[in-house]
Amino acid sequence: MFKINENYLKLPGSYLFSTIAKKVAAYTEANPDKEIIRLGIGDVTQPLAPAIIEAMHKAVDEMGKAETFRGYAPDLGYQFLRDAIAQEDYKAKGADISADEIFVSDGAKCDSGNIQEIFSVDNKIAVCDPVYPVYVDTNVMAGRTGTYDAAKETWSDVIYMPCTAENQFAPDFPKETPNLIYLCFPNNPTGSTITKDQLQGWVDYANKVGAVIIYDAAYEAYISEENVAHTIYECPGARTCAIELKSFSKNAGFTGVRLGYTVIPKDLKCKDVSLHSLWERRHGTKYNGAPYIVQRAGEAVYSAEGREQLKKQVAYYMNNAGIIKEGLQAAGYSVSGGVNAPYIWLKTPDGMSSWEFFDYLLETANVVGTPGSGFGPSGEGYFRLTAFGSYENTLAAMERIRAM
Amino acid sequence: MFKINENYLKLPGSYLFSTIAKKVAAYTEANPDKEIIRLGIGDVTQPLAPAIIEAMHKAVDEMGKAETFRGYAPDLGYQFLRDAIAQEDYKAKGADISADEIFVSDGAKCDSGNIQEIFSVDNKIAVCDPVYPVYVDTNVMAGRTGTYDAAKETWSDVIYMPCTAENQFAPDFPKETPNLIYLCFPNNPTGSTITKDQLQGWVDYANKVGAVIIYDAAYEAYISEENVAHTIYECPGARTCAIELKSFSKNAGFTGVRLGYTVIPKDLKCKDVSLHSLWERRHGTKYNGAPYIVQRAGEAVYSAEGREQLKKQVAYYMNNAGIIKEGLQAAGYSVSGGVNAPYIWLKTPDGMSSWEFFDYLLETANVVGTPGSGFGPSGEGYFRLTAFGSYENTLAAMERIRAM
Repeated sequence: MFKINENYLKLPGSYLFSTIAKKVAAYTEANPDKEIIRLGIGDVTQPLAPAIIEAMHKAVDEMGKAETFRGYAPDLGYQFLRDAIAQEDYKAKGADISADEIFVSDGAKCDSGNIQEIFSVDNKIAVCDPVYPVYVDTNVMAGRTGTYDAAKETWSDVIYMPCTAENQFAPDFPKETPNLIYLCFPNNPTGSTITKDQLQGWVDYANKVGAVIIYDAAYEAYISEENVAHTIYECPGARTCAIELKSFSKNAGFTGVRLGYTVIPKDLKCKDVSLHSLWERRHGTKYNGAPYIVQRAGEAVYSAEGREQLKKQVAYYMNNAGIIKEGLQAAGYSVSGGVNAPYIWLKTPDGMSSWEFFDYLLETANVVGTPGSGFGPSGEGYFRLTAFGSYENTLAAMERIRAM
Repeated sequence: MFKINENYLKLPGSYLFSTIAKKVAAYTEANPDKEIIRLGIGDVTQPLAPAIIEAMHKAVDEMGKAETFRGYAPDLGYQFLRDAIAQEDYKAKGADISADEIFVSDGAKCDSGNIQEIFSVDNKIAVCDPVYPVYVDTNVMAGRTGTYDAAKETWSDVIYMPCTAENQFAPDFPKETPNLIYLCFPNNPTGSTITKDQLQGWVDYANKVGAVIIYDAAYEAYISEENVAHTIYECPGARTCAIELKSFSKNAGFTGVRLGYTVIPKDLKCKDVSLHSLWERRHGTKYNGAPYIVQRAGEAVYSAEGREQLKKQVAYYMNNAGIIKEGLQAAGYSVSGGVNAPYIWLKTPDGMSSWEFFDYLLETANVVGTPGSGFGPSGEGYFRLTAFGSYENTLAAMERIRAM
């Protein structure tokens, strides 16, 4: 008789956002007259920018003619897109990354889930707490996390780095030495970030202890402050210790378009084996490239028109972030984030648990957010709102919350 | 110090098609005046059908307007596409599969590589020999295949089922009992298939021994004979033992568009754990859906216009298959395939090895094919040509081969 991967059975409950969706569906069914405002899941609402729409139409037309039709894409992605990324996201920011160190993919969620595959099962991971659940869950599936303590909501073989108001949501170096360190700045879910100097500290630490940093820079476009790195490769030494994940979902609204990329510098090695070669092998064996049309859409993100239009889109969401942040502060909430990130992280009032506040907000204001505890035990007592709604909905949500 | 997944280092050489690409590039550089005809990799050449182009333009427009913009897709795929698949690929063929047993993905290559993840590492796999390399290589990466014997080109813990002229390229039940059985019919690379009765035999066998069949039906659209199953679920009993993988790459030319799906019936269980629930969890955790635009393109494949247009596209390639098959036979080659599949499988002449014939064909006729030995040891002495070229190139290639 065949056997299943028993690690899957260790996963507690369902994926956070599935649980939220079910709760909202149940509430909506019981209260069909209530108008729900969703500031929960980090999904964008603004349409794709005109430059991107134009590029996609053009690419669709190319696919309809024999002379310009494109079949399988190159394994690592089309050169035109990798060149644009290397130039705009790296060289223009003073970071030394070449086009052939970039792997185009269908999104940072997939990459952040798959990247652990090229590492040994007995490597120990360190994660921020709270954390984007995909990092931990995919390591659970791989059998890397030990046993689950349901009371503490922690795994025996995971190193947790608490990020709370006490340390300004910036992780301290862990007591136990990790092999893989997942970092995400600007952070999901807390909306906070660290300075470039602090990030340099992590690079130096990783090089010293022989760890790899898996750096999720999905929210880079929202950075507004000077002393925050746009890529980890701004930090000297990162080429020998860091993998960077990037998404087009939040800077260009590609949540339903699907595009991302992973950078693995060729200097990143375990003895004489380069991680670049391992990921290249995985990419070639288990993946077949992002759609041509989508890669052309990605290219348009870097065009002069595309950049101009997307700057406005980011500003639109950050205006929402400001409204939420100020609205909550005016209503007496303790709030962080929302300055370099589209997420606002608030302390739940009156000692409510995260899920209690979720229910309270849903039932009283008909606003959906995300319980902080869904991101890890140190998220308990916190709650995440996102700036990705429409301006009108964001205003309405804040009015309702103020009236609570 | 972090450690890598050592299983990757066991993989011999590079991915077959990368090796071919490098050989062709070297030849082209040395002989810039020669015009190469590529009948090697299974990539299509005909443009997307008008109905698909129209659907994609419409979807692109929707993405450009706030009212119709779509963000994250539902985990399992859009209902409109899953309904179309359930109706046209299953109900219309008398197979009992419901829409919620279908998982939409970005292609059968990814799914066929990822599906092994939900099974225990100590399951034993059986594969046809020759075989699509992805099945074996992804199990190597997972540590499921034991040690490699470089002389025999086989893995100690893989059960090989030879498919040669002696058994009409139809595998026999293996002596040792497997846990997972990879089957692909119509077959890549041999172009052969088995009858519905033979497939029923495999379903009965799998149910008897407690194995799961991973059934790759990527070439189903090319079936021309009556007694060949279009889906494994035509066979009673398949709901308790079979997972089916389908691609839009070959029936609709989506190699550069990226769309596929996997079917896991809810009756397929290991004790009380349904494989459907495990794959649902994986899908939700490590994947973020196929692009909306691409899912609309997939829907158009099932429209009346789409079906009519694609029937002609398949006929175009199968006409090429006939030209190759008859041309080779007239030239004295021993040939199979090309009747229910776009692949022609020929015996190399004069006892040449597969790679010797590759070089001979490249240098003498400037035609690129795929060495049979690249698909497994029993592929030695065989060679694959594909029908996916243009009509003109296919004719030209056959003239050159006849003149050799």
